[in-house]
Amino acid sequence: VFFFLFLSMPRDSSVSMKTCYELYYWPSIQGRGEFVRLAFEEAGVPYVDVARLPAKRGGGVPAMTKLLESDALGLVPFAPPFLKVGSLLLGHTANILQYLGPRHGLVPDDEVSRLHAHQLQLSVTDFVAEIHDTHHPISVGLYYEDQKREAKKRASYFVKERLPLFLNYFERALVQNGGERFIGSAISYVDLSLFQVLVGLRYAFPKAMARVEKSTPKLVALADSVAARPRIAAYLASNRRLPFSEEDVFRHYPELDAKP
Amino acid sequence: VFFFLFLSMPRDSSVSMKTCYELYYWPSIQGRGEFVRLAFEEAGVPYVDVARLPAKRGGGVPAMTKLLESDALGLVPFAPPFLKVGSLLLGHTANILQYLGPRHGLVPDDEVSRLHAHQLQLSVTDFVAEIHDTHHPISVGLYYEDQKREAKKRASYFVKERLPLFLNYFERALVQNGGERFIGSAISYVDLSLFQVLVGLRYAFPKAMARVEKSTPKLVALADSVAARPRIAAYLASNRRLPFSEEDVFRHYPELDAKP
Repeated sequence: VFFFLFLSMPRDSSVSMKTCYELYYWPSIQGRGEFVRLAFEEAGVPYVDVARLPAKRGGGVPAMTKLLESDALGLVPFAPPFLKVGSLLLGHTANILQYLGPRHGLVPDDEVSRLHAHQLQLSVTDFVAEIHDTHHPISVGLYYEDQKREAKKRASYFVKERLPLFLNYFERALVQNGGERFIGSAISYVDLSLFQVLVGLRYAFPKAMARVEKSTPKLVALADSVAARPRIAAYLASNRRLPFSEEDVFRHYPELDAKP
Repeated sequence: VFFFLFLSMPRDSSVSMKTCYELYYWPSIQGRGEFVRLAFEEAGVPYVDVARLPAKRGGGVPAMTKLLESDALGLVPFAPPFLKVGSLLLGHTANILQYLGPRHGLVPDDEVSRLHAHQLQLSVTDFVAEIHDTHHPISVGLYYEDQKREAKKRASYFVKERLPLFLNYFERALVQNGGERFIGSAISYVDLSLFQVLVGLRYAFPKAMARVEKSTPKLVALADSVAARPRIAAYLASNRRLPFSEEDVFRHYPELDAKP
């Protein structure tokens, strides 16, 4: 099950020394790491998903914990996901994407495009945090079942107010750039991220999304076009794409979804 | 009361054309805009705090709303604060700071320093969102009084778990860089931001902070050193520094603070 991860590594060790990207993230969920995985997959850039490798090959969660506990490489990230490039540790999804974007053709080269791509990605970050908090409104240290009553309250406001607010904002941003892509005319990591947000929301809140998507046709078309890209389609059909689950950011709890 | 804002603008119109920064943020609170204000103040860079100007001089909240509703300048920010530089609109506090930092000596020039400064600032962003949600765990659209019971629950976990987790992380990051400054050897926007977080938390959670600060001596010394910098001290003593209040991100509700 982990064999493909090695296959995707460069065989030539000189290439490996130059370009080896190590992604560190929880091995059993899509979570925030998925935005980085999608960027690597679309760009066709080899990466090692370290915590998904078996421990005997230097993987597993302990490999991640070890780095987070060490001071050897300087500034340590607050939390996963983080990227290791040589001796550089780089934390925060949006920061990782703004680092990878210009290096692998996932954002135009000019400064304004980069700043605006990152700006949109930071709104994705905020949105994802709010999506997460629908099922964890009190504490990340408590089980969902222990904050279910509060989750129902928070989720009811989320599907009524925040979900349409964010999606209509992204629809508008897309239209402001012509309606096909968020930044420039080629695909960027922002397009990939909005695909992930849309499919995650459909999993978590199918009823609410059926309603809200009616007002965001460009976003729906964008997500379809991302899913149809050859490398993304291959990735989604592979074992590398983890399934959605109720251990993840996007969780399907019917009691949190909109009433029809 | 708004006169000083004009005084701080460049008089030479050619300079003004080149360097005029317009900050757009809610005029009556520190909020997320304060991190940007502190950067401008420390750098001695003139800026216009647009929404704090009277309407007859082109200010007020309507000036901000007008920009957010217009499509004329391209990509619109999701929410304040945002910066206007010529025809560029730039949203998200951390993104604004990473734009201003290298231009005004508030971050070292090399890429790793910039990436790590931004990484730390994104952890500040997350922390500030969690601080906000202690008094708004259910919805930003409800009054505190209408989510007080849930706020008490969320805040109790916050002061017990999240507050020490974040502050101890920042203490460790500071120590990893020698203990005086977060990035490099000179002051950066990250140092200014952590000062703001610390004084805000002392206002909001004085009991909890009295306890947690014992384990973060370097952070305390950093905040003291920022407050003593001539430009910051002058700013804090001026009318430009708005007072803390219960309309802001950092709110003092004794019932949310730690039990002694």
